[in-house]
Amino acid sequence: MRRLSWRMVVSGVVGLTVALEALPWLLNWLQVRRRRRPRRDVLFFPSQVTCTEALLQALVKAPDGPTASCPCNLPHCESSLSRLLRALLAAQDSLELCLFAFSSPQLGRAVRLLHQRGVRVRVVTDCDYMALNGSQIGLLRKAGIQVRHDQDLGYMHHKFAIVDKKVLITGSLNWTTQAIQNNRENVLIMEDEEYVQLFLEEFERIWEEFNPRKYSFFPQKKQGL
Amino acid sequence: MRRLSWRMVVSGVVGLTVALEALPWLLNWLQVRRRRRPRRDVLFFPSQVTCTEALLQALVKAPDGPTASCPCNLPHCESSLSRLLRALLAAQDSLELCLFAFSSPQLGRAVRLLHQRGVRVRVVTDCDYMALNGSQIGLLRKAGIQVRHDQDLGYMHHKFAIVDKKVLITGSLNWTTQAIQNNRENVLIMEDEEYVQLFLEEFERIWEEFNPRKYSFFPQKKQGL
Repeated sequence: MRRLSWRMVVSGVVGLTVALEALPWLLNWLQVRRRRRPRRDVLFFPSQVTCTEALLQALVKAPDGPTASCPCNLPHCESSLSRLLRALLAAQDSLELCLFAFSSPQLGRAVRLLHQRGVRVRVVTDCDYMALNGSQIGLLRKAGIQVRHDQDLGYMHHKFAIVDKKVLITGSLNWTTQAIQNNRENVLIMEDEEYVQLFLEEFERIWEEFNPRKYSFFPQKKQGL
Repeated sequence: MRRLSWRMVVSGVVGLTVALEALPWLLNWLQVRRRRRPRRDVLFFPSQVTCTEALLQALVKAPDGPTASCPCNLPHCESSLSRLLRALLAAQDSLELCLFAFSSPQLGRAVRLLHQRGVRVRVVTDCDYMALNGSQIGLLRKAGIQVRHDQDLGYMHHKFAIVDKKVLITGSLNWTTQAIQNNRENVLIMEDEEYVQLFLEEFERIWEEFNPRKYSFFPQKKQGL
């Protein structure tokens, strides 16, 4: 009997050891499964010209409405532009845009659709590129979206977006059809708290600085490039 | 005697349990101490105008040479430009540059100094901005640095650098004094294998595409912005 209880105690302790060893691994495994991998993506341009109609339509149609296939002749596959659109259209609450030039009709339409859906959109841009041929800024303003612009000597040359204060989209790409279809460009899409926070602070700094109450109506002209 | 040995076995097993529990934490702690945090930095511009002489001098002077203080009137503190310079000057083996416009004298000098020190520098740029007033491209070529440029309809609009195939420097900033001192710009400095690899592949793709053997001597003119 004494021999049996001795064996039982040892087995119990060994069992406890194994269980204690396994526990952190099990918890970690469960945590990794639960924790979605944060989004990290790089888009390179020029982008193949593809149809983006389905992506934009998906934002306006009723959830149980018919999914009309687009009859146009463009390829209906993924492209850098469609991936950029998808990242933007994911916005549910807020969208901050800090863009030097904004004339892409697809991106303009996406931003207006988000605004219609109730996403709080704020746009900061460079005053020299606001009224250029094809600029989307007028259409955004007409739709009721808040736009602020610089009056500085230098350019407001950022090209970044922040989606739902969680995802940063930044790079070399101006939001123009020329840049999307012809230029060598890069865009990073990063679900990264640290970077998002820093860019959000930069946005708020500029947003406050470009407050219309601070406009001077006879600013100096900009210097050359 | 039998009671003593029973106690000893239990103490031994409990000791072993504790040791086995502590081991992974100890190993992890040692690993964290050994593993330096990868570099993650964001620079915002315009940059304060500061003296960058000491940074550049540090690259040419003998390790035991005198540290002459610069007598100029500029502030001798950190700035976004000095942090960008520091990230570049860390290069020991290789530097890939993919730049739309490059006219900053400080950044040009830094790149030439790295080349003199034996770092393999390769530069890709946009042909339209190569010969502009103040462009550094001619000086880089004169120093023996390999430069390749596009002949495309679109712009080679990237603005990134890769240091020692380990650190990616990318953003909206053209390497011009106008952009550094007057524009709102951002630059990310990322020691991140995944991003570095993707940008390195993009660099190699462009480098091969811009091989002078592939030049056509009557290319089409570029389209407007």
